[in-house]
Amino acid sequence: MPTIVVDVMPKAELLDPQGKAVSGALARLGQDAFSAVRIGKRFELTVEGEVDDEVLATARKVADEILSNSVIEDVVGIEVVE
Amino acid sequence: MPTIVVDVMPKAELLDPQGKAVSGALARLGQDAFSAVRIGKRFELTVEGEVDDEVLATARKVADEILSNSVIEDVVGIEVVE
Repeated sequence: MPTIVVDVMPKAELLDPQGKAVSGALARLGQDAFSAVRIGKRFELTVEGEVDDEVLATARKVADEILSNSVIEDVVGIEVVE
Repeated sequence: MPTIVVDVMPKAELLDPQGKAVSGALARLGQDAFSAVRIGKRFELTVEGEVDDEVLATARKVADEILSNSVIEDVVGIEVVE
């Protein structure tokens, strides 16, 4: 069944305390390859039947209005996978 | 700067209560295009310099051992974006 993947990340200009904590933990564990970590959400929406333009438009609307909080988050990706 | 994106999802055979809640909320709000919702995490690891095989191997190790809990989660994707 097709799945629509929606990626939501904290806005770039905002602090991401969860990411900061993971970044600090990685450094303490000796992993210094990464200079920053940000953590967002990945939603998988399962669609019964075909993904047509209407379903995609609905997904975009749901992503913007329900799955993300536009004050602090950006929808960074919407893609269809099988 | 290059970024390594790590996607982590709850294992398919496990219930995802957060996803179930969102799925129920969507249905109550009149959005019935989606039959199921699962919610995972998206990590963005910023790399200073080039992403070579060694950095990618480190990212894979960190994804498996630190960013995900292999009892309940799967790493479903690791990709490099600019």
